[in-house]
Amino acid sequence: MNINGTAHRTISLDESDSEVPLVYTIDQRFLPHELRRIALKTSNDVATAIEEMWLRGAPLIGAAAALGFYLGLREADPATWDRDIKKLTDKLLRTRPTAVNLHWAVARQLTAIEKGVSYDEKIGIARQTALDIIEEDVAICKQIGEHGLKIIEYISNQKSKKIVNVLTHCNAGWLACIDWGTATAPIYLAHQKGIAIHVWVDETRPRMQGSITAYELAQQGVPHTVISDNTGGLLLQQGLVDLCIVGTDRTTRTGDVANKIGTYLKALAAHDNNVPFYVALPSHTFDFSISNGLTDIPIETRSEQEVLEVQGVHAGELKTVRLFPTGTRALNYGFDITPARLITGLITERGVCEANEEAIKAMFPQA
Amino acid sequence: MNINGTAHRTISLDESDSEVPLVYTIDQRFLPHELRRIALKTSNDVATAIEEMWLRGAPLIGAAAALGFYLGLREADPATWDRDIKKLTDKLLRTRPTAVNLHWAVARQLTAIEKGVSYDEKIGIARQTALDIIEEDVAICKQIGEHGLKIIEYISNQKSKKIVNVLTHCNAGWLACIDWGTATAPIYLAHQKGIAIHVWVDETRPRMQGSITAYELAQQGVPHTVISDNTGGLLLQQGLVDLCIVGTDRTTRTGDVANKIGTYLKALAAHDNNVPFYVALPSHTFDFSISNGLTDIPIETRSEQEVLEVQGVHAGELKTVRLFPTGTRALNYGFDITPARLITGLITERGVCEANEEAIKAMFPQA
Repeated sequence: MNINGTAHRTISLDESDSEVPLVYTIDQRFLPHELRRIALKTSNDVATAIEEMWLRGAPLIGAAAALGFYLGLREADPATWDRDIKKLTDKLLRTRPTAVNLHWAVARQLTAIEKGVSYDEKIGIARQTALDIIEEDVAICKQIGEHGLKIIEYISNQKSKKIVNVLTHCNAGWLACIDWGTATAPIYLAHQKGIAIHVWVDETRPRMQGSITAYELAQQGVPHTVISDNTGGLLLQQGLVDLCIVGTDRTTRTGDVANKIGTYLKALAAHDNNVPFYVALPSHTFDFSISNGLTDIPIETRSEQEVLEVQGVHAGELKTVRLFPTGTRALNYGFDITPARLITGLITERGVCEANEEAIKAMFPQA
Repeated sequence: MNINGTAHRTISLDESDSEVPLVYTIDQRFLPHELRRIALKTSNDVATAIEEMWLRGAPLIGAAAALGFYLGLREADPATWDRDIKKLTDKLLRTRPTAVNLHWAVARQLTAIEKGVSYDEKIGIARQTALDIIEEDVAICKQIGEHGLKIIEYISNQKSKKIVNVLTHCNAGWLACIDWGTATAPIYLAHQKGIAIHVWVDETRPRMQGSITAYELAQQGVPHTVISDNTGGLLLQQGLVDLCIVGTDRTTRTGDVANKIGTYLKALAAHDNNVPFYVALPSHTFDFSISNGLTDIPIETRSEQEVLEVQGVHAGELKTVRLFPTGTRALNYGFDITPARLITGLITERGVCEANEEAIKAMFPQA
């Protein structure tokens, strides 16, 4: 998608120096205030970037982990190969416990490199697998967009072409993926098709990923309004929301959704006001091994500083301010679980299905 | 309640100079970072203090309006008395459209001064009425505390004296009243009684009134943890909340509750997890003239700057930082409506009643 009118992707492999491949990405900690492109040189760099949320978003984490795995293979010593790969795998998996894409990407790499006979061949396979994951993600997001577009078109027709109001939480936009985004892909396609659309952007404390969504939408020219996370309930009560679309970091085979903390509250309010609530996801975000979101998905606890402080611009400079009295303690869970019963449908690259085991199995029979 | 170990009230009338009575209050815009006591000299000062939220909280707004009315009567010209009183009334009522206490306090003053024969007598009555409102509020909050304490004691006994976890939203503490607070009064009394209690404090964006609640609780030594407004749903899902207590700015005769934006979302989550959700209120917060919270209570829209910016401490100084890209628009509703069906009970100075017309009428038959 566009930044300042130029098409961008969130991550890419720069092989202009064939001896030293670089992973280029955006350090999202400075967004929306500054656009900083950074080069990651080692698997440690990639692990740090994931853990400290220089990059974030389930699909982007998966792609970054796949590239990190490739860099890690290059760093591995043939003499201690198996141990090095085990260390590399552990290092990458430990960065973000809730995101299933991380596991999916690393598992895919581990399976793929088994086919390589020599170490060099394994490294080559890991390189290609990472690049494949990136290209597939772009295609998957576009397909999610096309399936979600039909929902927006349907609502637009029902409203006789009045503005369709979408509420979203966190950033499940292209900056969380490679391109298009998951929750935003239908919005971007609808906007490109000339459907009148407006997005309510939850600011998404504590890390304010809503500011990244606002940045994205502004760059593509999509009308939007930022709201505090407390506001969506009233908007739903007042009929000012036609549908909700969010992303997910892990979805059970029964349709329970782990997503950014606060998602559950919006799903409750949408349900209470008969407004459809959709979750957009690439199918590799399903964790087919689990059935109960509340008991089976580990919830990441993050630093309390993320709650106690916030970053913004003061007099042209990025500053961090403390929001609470000195000595105040905070608890910072990264995700919550939205039970399947509150979800109208799952928008996947194969189409839209209901959030229940039967419907999911019908759409993904091989899983 | 205590600040730095010394008992304080939020507002008082200083008549040490009998020619120039002063209304002393705390400029809460600087809390929790600075304690600034300020003197309001005129009814305009009081109106500004209410409108710009130097002071806030339904009961405190009522008390301030009553004192502002007294100052306004002193400023009125006998030659244009009726017109001046009309102007004064309009000025005070316009400051915060949702708070019913404002209307209640001004209406009480208007009725009270009718009994005065001379202008001086009317001014004297207004002075006494304002002082009565203040003393009554202290007594009412204490009674709310005693009735709410029984609920906490019951839960504490059920849990065999394990810690009782209370979730609260916004600040319905003593800093929103004169003393004790509404939602906090049961908490303070339980803590004084030695019941093990811990409070989850919603930060309450956009204005972060949770930081004031955290400040209050820290000053009284009550254990507490701050959370982003998104977090309460997960805590409720995980069984980490035993009850919710919030305040209200206006409650219909049917038990629908207007309170700080975001309250509705927590009530939905409490209901979804079978956790009791209580609203603490002085009975003058009832608006017996209306029955449908969603259609009959005007919702205040405040400046978008409150969402787009936030204030905190950087390098020892209070700074305001911009959180969103330049040009981002925001919508800032101050309140939402929690339907009576989601509320376990209303804690009033007369006792606890269910949130429905019959129960409310039984407790307040004269209304």
